[in-house]
Amino acid sequence: MNFAPTPKMLEWQERLMKFVTENVVPAEPLFRKEMEANRAKGNQWNPTHEVMDGLKAKARAAGLWNMFLPASQHGAGLTNLEYAPLCEIMGRYPLTSEAMNCSAPDTGNMELLERYGTPEHKEKWLKPLLAGEIRSGFAMTEPDVPSSDATQIQSRIVRDGDHYVINGRKWWTSGAPDPRCKVLIFMGKTGTVDDPSPHKQQSMIIVPMDTPGVKVERWLSVYGYDHAPHGHAEISFTNVRVPADHLLLGEGRGFEIAQGRLGPGRIHHCMRLIGGAERALELMCKRALVRKPFGKLLSDQGVWRERIAHSRILIDQARLLTMNAAFAMDTKGNKGAKNEIAMIKVVAPQMACQVIDWAIQIHGGAGVSQDTPLAAAYTSARTIRFADGPDEVHLNAIGKSELAKYMAPKVKA
Amino acid sequence: MNFAPTPKMLEWQERLMKFVTENVVPAEPLFRKEMEANRAKGNQWNPTHEVMDGLKAKARAAGLWNMFLPASQHGAGLTNLEYAPLCEIMGRYPLTSEAMNCSAPDTGNMELLERYGTPEHKEKWLKPLLAGEIRSGFAMTEPDVPSSDATQIQSRIVRDGDHYVINGRKWWTSGAPDPRCKVLIFMGKTGTVDDPSPHKQQSMIIVPMDTPGVKVERWLSVYGYDHAPHGHAEISFTNVRVPADHLLLGEGRGFEIAQGRLGPGRIHHCMRLIGGAERALELMCKRALVRKPFGKLLSDQGVWRERIAHSRILIDQARLLTMNAAFAMDTKGNKGAKNEIAMIKVVAPQMACQVIDWAIQIHGGAGVSQDTPLAAAYTSARTIRFADGPDEVHLNAIGKSELAKYMAPKVKA
Amino acid sequence: MNFAPTPKMLEWQERLMKFVTENVVPAEPLFRKEMEANRAKGNQWNPTHEVMDGLKAKARAAGLWNMFLPASQHGAGLTNLEYAPLCEIMGRYPLTSEAMNCSAPDTGNMELLERYGTPEHKEKWLKPLLAGEIRSGFAMTEPDVPSSDATQIQSRIVRDGDHYVINGRKWWTSGAPDPRCKVLIFMGKTGTVDDPSPHKQQSMIIVPMDTPGVKVERWLSVYGYDHAPHGHAEISFTNVRVPADHLLLGEGRGFEIAQGRLGPGRIHHCMRLIGGAERALELMCKRALVRKPFGKLLSDQGVWRERIAHSRILIDQARLLTMNAAFAMDTKGNKGAKNEIAMIKVVAPQMACQVIDWAIQIHGGAGVSQDTPLAAAYTSARTIRFADGPDEVHLNAIGKSELAKYMAPKVKA
Amino acid sequence: MNFAPTPKMLEWQERLMKFVTENVVPAEPLFRKEMEANRAKGNQWNPTHEVMDGLKAKARAAGLWNMFLPASQHGAGLTNLEYAPLCEIMGRYPLTSEAMNCSAPDTGNMELLERYGTPEHKEKWLKPLLAGEIRSGFAMTEPDVPSSDATQIQSRIVRDGDHYVINGRKWWTSGAPDPRCKVLIFMGKTGTVDDPSPHKQQSMIIVPMDTPGVKVERWLSVYGYDHAPHGHAEISFTNVRVPADHLLLGEGRGFEIAQGRLGPGRIHHCMRLIGGAERALELMCKRALVRKPFGKLLSDQGVWRERIAHSRILIDQARLLTMNAAFAMDTKGNKGAKNEIAMIKVVAPQMACQVIDWAIQIHGGAGVSQDTPLAAAYTSARTIRFADGPDEVHLNAIGKSELAKYMAPKVKA
Repeated sequence: MNFAPTPKMLEWQERLMKFVTENVVPAEPLFRKEMEANRAKGNQWNPTHEVMDGLKAKARAAGLWNMFLPASQHGAGLTNLEYAPLCEIMGRYPLTSEAMNCSAPDTGNMELLERYGTPEHKEKWLKPLLAGEIRSGFAMTEPDVPSSDATQIQSRIVRDGDHYVINGRKWWTSGAPDPRCKVLIFMGKTGTVDDPSPHKQQSMIIVPMDTPGVKVERWLSVYGYDHAPHGHAEISFTNVRVPADHLLLGEGRGFEIAQGRLGPGRIHHCMRLIGGAERALELMCKRALVRKPFGKLLSDQGVWRERIAHSRILIDQARLLTMNAAFAMDTKGNKGAKNEIAMIKVVAPQMACQVIDWAIQIHGGAGVSQDTPLAAAYTSARTIRFADGPDEVHLNAIGKSELAKYMAPKVKA
Repeated sequence: MNFAPTPKMLEWQERLMKFVTENVVPAEPLFRKEMEANRAKGNQWNPTHEVMDGLKAKARAAGLWNMFLPASQHGAGLTNLEYAPLCEIMGRYPLTSEAMNCSAPDTGNMELLERYGTPEHKEKWLKPLLAGEIRSGFAMTEPDVPSSDATQIQSRIVRDGDHYVINGRKWWTSGAPDPRCKVLIFMGKTGTVDDPSPHKQQSMIIVPMDTPGVKVERWLSVYGYDHAPHGHAEISFTNVRVPADHLLLGEGRGFEIAQGRLGPGRIHHCMRLIGGAERALELMCKRALVRKPFGKLLSDQGVWRERIAHSRILIDQARLLTMNAAFAMDTKGNKGAKNEIAMIKVVAPQMACQVIDWAIQIHGGAGVSQDTPLAAAYTSARTIRFADGPDEVHLNAIGKSELAKYMAPKVKA
Repeated sequence: MNFAPTPKMLEWQERLMKFVTENVVPAEPLFRKEMEANRAKGNQWNPTHEVMDGLKAKARAAGLWNMFLPASQHGAGLTNLEYAPLCEIMGRYPLTSEAMNCSAPDTGNMELLERYGTPEHKEKWLKPLLAGEIRSGFAMTEPDVPSSDATQIQSRIVRDGDHYVINGRKWWTSGAPDPRCKVLIFMGKTGTVDDPSPHKQQSMIIVPMDTPGVKVERWLSVYGYDHAPHGHAEISFTNVRVPADHLLLGEGRGFEIAQGRLGPGRIHHCMRLIGGAERALELMCKRALVRKPFGKLLSDQGVWRERIAHSRILIDQARLLTMNAAFAMDTKGNKGAKNEIAMIKVVAPQMACQVIDWAIQIHGGAGVSQDTPLAAAYTSARTIRFADGPDEVHLNAIGKSELAKYMAPKVKA
Repeated sequence: MNFAPTPKMLEWQERLMKFVTENVVPAEPLFRKEMEANRAKGNQWNPTHEVMDGLKAKARAAGLWNMFLPASQHGAGLTNLEYAPLCEIMGRYPLTSEAMNCSAPDTGNMELLERYGTPEHKEKWLKPLLAGEIRSGFAMTEPDVPSSDATQIQSRIVRDGDHYVINGRKWWTSGAPDPRCKVLIFMGKTGTVDDPSPHKQQSMIIVPMDTPGVKVERWLSVYGYDHAPHGHAEISFTNVRVPADHLLLGEGRGFEIAQGRLGPGRIHHCMRLIGGAERALELMCKRALVRKPFGKLLSDQGVWRERIAHSRILIDQARLLTMNAAFAMDTKGNKGAKNEIAMIKVVAPQMACQVIDWAIQIHGGAGVSQDTPLAAAYTSARTIRFADGPDEVHLNAIGKSELAKYMAPKVKA
């Protein structure tokens, strides 16, 4: 439980904040304008991104690139505890993640290719991903089954000679509407109902987007947002045939890969949410200091002072819990830290929803419109309450684990 | 406190439900498809509306038209208590309001023209509005002042010979991005700081949209929605000159008109929110009955049973309170019922936000996407928590009124 | 849904309020003083009650006596809807219930004897109960099983010739520590595990307190309160032998009797809680109007204005829902109104806990001490959240009932 | 932010837990029985305490004595961070604090005498307090003014020759009904309204309980508890005359002393609340694992699993925040850590109230009765929400401090 920032951490945070202040903050309105212009032409999936491409070039030149990747020559050699505060900054200024090639789902996919990919996979997919030249998707969730229970996945990956043939339907494959997205990691069933363990029937396989039979059916909106240029796709897979060596790690090991993938991603998400909440609190305070309905500044009104105080308390508690989880991952491993991770997965999105919602309320119409980042930030935070496993599943796991402390030893097993 | 439905009420509800079932429900996907096609061409403010125009013709033919208008030969002669349950149905099937020419802000504007307009105003504006041929806007909220405190309105309406000259900036003028919107009711200051009462400085005036100097600057998004084809506009008014007879009721009487306008509108809004919440609860139940993560139907899980039960309780309580407010308006008048109205204005949107949010959670990705009406319904309910006066202002008024019961008589006055 | 007060209702309320103002309010400090004096001598179960006996004599003389009893020559001929507002007054001034012989558990027991008792039972027990000469208890809850699931009751009632022999242990038998308590209605199992239906194994039987083998083991505290002179007892029953004619209605009909007993009692409880909450709100407002920390009256502070407003809203909603349930009972019967009753059983205690807790907070130390009725009122309200079935059981029932609307017909049955 | 337990901390925790397990846990029922016997005789303020005196002797012999005192030869040399986990254990087993002479208000009074007392004060009062031979009270709160705003204190301390003469009325002087309480630290006004600063008018003075004019008027109940043998008193002071050297630190320095006194006490309180919440969670889990209403263990029901999970999350967050505050106090001083302290003062009692209340609900009648420590623990936690400054005052301070970050520099000052 030592979360004290080391000199190394402070130096990274300083470098990042300098980059954000000098480059990201001024780019925010330009990026929005570029997207609005595209959208007005019904052209929001345009592959050209002048503002973002400029930011990426600068970030790479500044050595702020791929910092997420742990234990790899390609990354920055940061532990979870060291990387976490950088994610908070990225969450506060959302363009930062992509500018530094540190945005989901590419981060998880790159880590997965780094760990489980063959040299060929790395050459073909990891290299351009690390270079920020292409993007990728993670095709797991399906529309027809409860995504929280991955044993219910229905898509099939069937061996046929030197190939696997894939059939199924996925949705919420983030990044897939973006023409820059060139490859998917796809999870489906190789096993059959005869398999002894329901957790050994799934496998993961690499699927290039241009494989015949892969069809982006449509993009999905999030509270009215298209999340362009990234977006979320529904994709059908009809007799999609890929070489057998595209399967990762081996048949039946999909669950195992998925578990390893999720831990760090949750720290990243939660710290980003904390950053988003900090920005909302900043906007809330600034608004309170200038609005004066009925002759009294909102900053002098008890109701708003209390909400501001509760926001500070909620944020600080969520940050301590997340740093605690990052520390636990670094010292006990992802599996040993599963309770700590489950707890932040529940706490951080709910905290962010509450703080951002108060910020929206104090802004009135400005809060729900395009004039503040608040409405978009709320919808992202809200979505995370069910993405990557809904609150209910995590709470159930935490509750079971607590109860197990008081069960007779043999029942526990 | 007699809310028992009369035969007249039951007959209206039956007629409306028949129309909704036969016409509105089948039109919902067609309307969405029409709008999506427009939007994909960046053309969402297209004035042609095949689906809605068809519905309107049918509704008018069925005699389901302008039912909102009380005490008028043009309306259906319904009291607030009688009209309220019809609003609940409209809230459950949102296309219904416009189909029957019963949607805001036209309803409030028509009532205002009916009550305060000259024969010329009625001929020119009320007649086509009642016929559903044009639409209208209500320009009150301004970006630079707290809209909850209308004394802070800055727009000026200055007499200049036989005309008034208008300057200012308004936003959240709903309906104004729609090319069918031909006229605005505009609120601004005719008075000066020398006026004795801050509530006698505002006036309302009719402003035709095609008057030189009226410029729709942009449309505002609500979370990610454009609310096309209706929308919300920011509008600038630069030396807008209208004949002096366009002023309603007289200089300094803007507040008086506004107060009368808001009461019935709040009943309508709240009952629509109740209808929206009922639909969310229906969807929640249906989803719970088919989804089975980890081998157990959600409908058999206590957490979801409790949320469903709480939803039923919250909805029923909100409906009783709203019917009580409608009854109070019918028997005590808008002013006498101001506490009852303030209470439902606080209760109904918060209730709807909670019920809809649970429905979103049980739907996961489907809940935030275009595949259910839930995300859009949430953002509407959420917005009403500050539109027409934020929760905080209404709670303050209710609290003051309660405290006044225990104050010494002379302090009360 | 016609809750409008009739002239008859208004007249009863007026009579009762007159009695309360003239007699109960002045008796409150005297009653407290009498009890404190008893308690200081370790003598709180003293059967002498000067203050209460005086009140009872006056109430009886005033014709305010046994008003609870419906459809009986002994009662006042009030429907549930008519009686409900009287319960609210009793809840506001808690001594009133006993003063008018309208307090639980005697009310339920008297109703039960009136409906199911033989002429001998009525002569021996109902008559002195109606006269307020003795009190009674209801022995149902057991310490070792979940009381919410009455099928788990373990006490045995075994036929032995012309007698039944009773063994078991009960607790939370309210009123039993009071020496005036002369008789119990006891629920236990006559049936065996072979019985086809788990709801046909219980029976109810009359047990005089002086039967050998009945032993009051101890009294139970409620958040430190002894609730003397009434109290709650744990009682052991060891080979308690009563004549066979003491069994009510027949073997296996205990559930049936219990169901009928609970409905009206819940209306009474909920309306009393509403009365208690009204009193707390009154005290909250009065305190806010005089306390001025840091130079500003609490009544001028937004945080307290909002709590006062929320209290008013919560109370009014709970009252409307309870009146609605009373109306449903009067028109649809106890069984037909079971959802309405379940809803108020959840809503009213939670509402009261919240309102009273705010009142405690504004009073600080005075709020938790003997100087206000607040702390005691809180503990009563809190206790009702699990007494007569915990929130969880009622919510589950409401949820199931809501879900059933969307199930296929045959599944429903 | 390094909260990692050091070997020294672990050793202390181990020693304390060994003592608790071997001595305190078995003494709990004996202590309760002793108190119940006293109370049944109306004799709860009996100065004889067999069980507690035995525990004290053992604790002292074990070297577990006065550990709270920092930076003193009499204490254990523990920092706030080191002492905090010991407080959590004391909170879990409430007899422990007094057994080790570490209970309020003696701890604060001893620290104050150690810091500001003359050698005579130390000899006469600190010595027997450190030896656990006498107890003490802190007389600050007054019934007629808002205790949260200490400038409103009305009691007078007036110089008269070599003496001060004290007049006033205090309440909630904890420990004063206990005959072992021999001395009070009294706060009152020496200054007059002419004093320039409202924070320089108060002084603190030592008042022996046996000084003529000191009268314990009555004891105050907390909900229904008397908190014997310790208790809370209302005390009148009538022309109480004490030597002038009994004044601490100098006239007008009462506020300064009070501020220093409160910081560590808040850490102690909060960690004790965390301990109390942990015990409640333990009881909740154990109950869930054995109760099986309607055929299903509560531990298998989602509603209870979620409450258990939320309890774990709330407790862990509160502990991290409190450790963070202790760390801040150790590194930045009490004044520098004022925001951190204010935050835990708000968080810990609310958290404890919630967790304990769920534990009460799962226990039903057992939860509110004398059969579990839950009801008493709830009332203590609830009381702390306004003792030592109500939630509202702390939230206001935190809110102001957050807003100050965004104010123009000169406005800040």
